[in-house]
Amino acid sequence: MEKTIITKNEIMALDKHDRTRLINSLPGVRAANLIGTISGSGKTNVAVFNSVMHIGADPALMGLIMRPVSVPRDTYHNIKETGYFTVNHVNEKIVQEAHQTSARYTQSEFEATGLTEEYSLLHPAPYVVQSKVKIGLKFVEEQLIRCNQTVLMIGEIVEIMVDPNMINEHGILQLDQTGSIGVGGLETYYTLTKLVELPYAKP
Amino acid sequence: MEKTIITKNEIMALDKHDRTRLINSLPGVRAANLIGTISGSGKTNVAVFNSVMHIGADPALMGLIMRPVSVPRDTYHNIKETGYFTVNHVNEKIVQEAHQTSARYTQSEFEATGLTEEYSLLHPAPYVVQSKVKIGLKFVEEQLIRCNQTVLMIGEIVEIMVDPNMINEHGILQLDQTGSIGVGGLETYYTLTKLVELPYAKP
Repeated sequence: MEKTIITKNEIMALDKHDRTRLINSLPGVRAANLIGTISGSGKTNVAVFNSVMHIGADPALMGLIMRPVSVPRDTYHNIKETGYFTVNHVNEKIVQEAHQTSARYTQSEFEATGLTEEYSLLHPAPYVVQSKVKIGLKFVEEQLIRCNQTVLMIGEIVEIMVDPNMINEHGILQLDQTGSIGVGGLETYYTLTKLVELPYAKP
Repeated sequence: MEKTIITKNEIMALDKHDRTRLINSLPGVRAANLIGTISGSGKTNVAVFNSVMHIGADPALMGLIMRPVSVPRDTYHNIKETGYFTVNHVNEKIVQEAHQTSARYTQSEFEATGLTEEYSLLHPAPYVVQSKVKIGLKFVEEQLIRCNQTVLMIGEIVEIMVDPNMINEHGILQLDQTGSIGVGGLETYYTLTKLVELPYAKP
């Protein structure tokens, strides 16, 4: 294999867009998720994120990284204003619509992209009908990352909407059955094929 | 589609291991990465993580979530002691060895699992020979997540070791060509098939 070392100075010398694309693709595959929110005045928002993460199981917590809020970020402000957000897995059938939510719209991205709102009695923020894994969260904590002013937003899971047949006998969600897809960087989508489920490792 | 709502109370009523497996698999696919570190006395460590994330491109930053450090965590203490760590993509050929690093060993996981150390002149922490994407980082920031005492560790990219043929004309790392795999939860590994690269979205 031909292998090259790209140094920090070479990274910083890249064109801004080239650097953004390269560095975003470096961590490896990430989950493609749609974050659904609603403003205090009732305007809905849905936006694709590649930064949703597991934070803890007891209590059940998930987080996402948001870019600096020095400019208006509807998702951030809606979460702060109403206290709730939803996480909806992107699948192959809605990859175009999901990606399109990253464009700057004045109207709700639900209207603009053809994704469909869905509501639960237990949660005020909108879910995405076309997603097969939907999680409702209540905002619990915000962490400012000092070195670049990005923000980690954390929510506690209020409810999970999923077909129970897509959870296997060990309690694990089967991401190939839910059609969930991954994303490398900001724009390259990948489908998933299950390779192996390995047991808890012992020496 | 049969769809069931699993409420917060039902989640909390699950057996601890079932809850851990379910909640860990909820965010969707995550990158499987090996974190390489070395202690001040020269003992190496390599451990599989599913929490490596992009933090920013300028400066180029990556992070990972670590479980509470109330018990000894070699990776955490090595990073704090020496200030450096490496991120190495797991690929299909080393999935068993990578998963096995999560067992509790007294010796270095490099010795125990058959993964091979590799060093760069620019960076003191060990890389994994068998990985095709290797990133060297210098520790820059730690954030304690208050709601459950997990820790977000952030490093600045010092160097990237990768075959340049695996970066496309737009500067994007091709995760199918590097053989990089994803992981759902703690144990279910997925291979990646490129679906589509979509352009920057405009209304």
